[in-house]
Amino acid sequence: MSDFKTNNNDMRLKPYRKDFTYSYSCGVFPTIELLTSCPDDVIKLIITEKGLSNSGVQKLITIAEQKGIPYTVDSKTAERLYPKENSYAIGAFNKYTCSLCPDKNHIVLVNPSDKGNLGTIIRTLTAFGIEDIAIISPAADIYDPKVIRASMGAVFKIRFQMFDSFDAYRKFLQDTVERSYFPFMLNGQPLETAKKPQSGVFSLIFGNEASGLDDSFLSIGTPVRIMHLDTVDSLNLTIAAAIGIYNFTQGDF
Amino acid sequence: MSDFKTNNNDMRLKPYRKDFTYSYSCGVFPTIELLTSCPDDVIKLIITEKGLSNSGVQKLITIAEQKGIPYTVDSKTAERLYPKENSYAIGAFNKYTCSLCPDKNHIVLVNPSDKGNLGTIIRTLTAFGIEDIAIISPAADIYDPKVIRASMGAVFKIRFQMFDSFDAYRKFLQDTVERSYFPFMLNGQPLETAKKPQSGVFSLIFGNEASGLDDSFLSIGTPVRIMHLDTVDSLNLTIAAAIGIYNFTQGDF
Repeated sequence: MSDFKTNNNDMRLKPYRKDFTYSYSCGVFPTIELLTSCPDDVIKLIITEKGLSNSGVQKLITIAEQKGIPYTVDSKTAERLYPKENSYAIGAFNKYTCSLCPDKNHIVLVNPSDKGNLGTIIRTLTAFGIEDIAIISPAADIYDPKVIRASMGAVFKIRFQMFDSFDAYRKFLQDTVERSYFPFMLNGQPLETAKKPQSGVFSLIFGNEASGLDDSFLSIGTPVRIMHLDTVDSLNLTIAAAIGIYNFTQGDF
Repeated sequence: MSDFKTNNNDMRLKPYRKDFTYSYSCGVFPTIELLTSCPDDVIKLIITEKGLSNSGVQKLITIAEQKGIPYTVDSKTAERLYPKENSYAIGAFNKYTCSLCPDKNHIVLVNPSDKGNLGTIIRTLTAFGIEDIAIISPAADIYDPKVIRASMGAVFKIRFQMFDSFDAYRKFLQDTVERSYFPFMLNGQPLETAKKPQSGVFSLIFGNEASGLDDSFLSIGTPVRIMHLDTVDSLNLTIAAAIGIYNFTQGDF
């Protein structure tokens, strides 16, 4: 059942596959986030020879020593695990699960399919103080190293939870707190007229890159639309999410 | 000197290189934009066999026939020119130059290095009614098929102009119209406090993905900052540009 022989740093790591129980952060910055935010989940830190002179790598080694995380200098393994990029450092970690905080603001992504988009959106929401993301399946694999890299490691600082359907997400919440829902749709009301709720919390809901949200979302909360010229068909998903998040958190910092 | 033998559709097209006098739109949607917006620059339209049943391709053929643009069904050439993607259609076009409209709102990108980012930003500015982009070299090649694809063909609907320096851009403008400059910098004033100018036009200025704008921009116009938590180092360039553009065009549509 397990993808590795032992649970310690003698395991033979393999290039990432979705069915593994572990994954990787690739690159110095995302790996610093991993070691800082989720030290208990780290299996080991792998450093390449040419990374040794890098100040970020030195910081990684210091953190690893402080937290008792094993590390090795092993360029071959690094190259084998993430061949396309010249990463100075890779952090192997056991996949962990989180549970959304039911009384906080949420971002809900319905069937996001692009790994880069998912990571970029996670980076954006973290920047604007949102710490919870619900992902409705089927969806890009949040543990994929490409998601982690696009998020610049922000994924390690948030709570994420996968649901089989939007209904399952709502059932999970059980209305423990007053919550306003804002599905982003081409036939919603102008975003500028939708104000941040005076009380309670909000969920901003975004659909798939190609298909958006289906019409069933028209009956949920306040559907909103980012007004733009029809010179372009629609906005890129990461752009729509960024504008939406900015609009609802503006003035908070 | 010329990259092809003749100036007609008998030329032998090669996979894109920056020094060529021609380039390609790859994919149905970007190619529709090419044929619609820049028909005089099109060399030829190439369709793949499996694209023939696609309704977008049928639309392309109709446009080509209306505008007298030569087209061929040639899957081999399509595959050779853009091997990574399964494109139904490719449009070969002669590179053309434009000149910015000096009395319109501008986006200025200083040394953008990523092709996908450049294309995504072009798509975003078009959506929000900005039609002019100044690009300060060195920069990603705006004619590269990857830029065109990320822009979804929006690049064919705007005016773009390359400059060797920001000074060269300002010299070109010659203050023909009242213009407010907003460099986006980590040490600028909060974006929310910077309002769209009551009169005249604006230039929103964004720096390179890794290095941002240098301190010389602190003395130009009104440096602004998109307020966010320092949980992330900085925002992705496409995200910063989108929020900036949205903020300055909000309510225009």
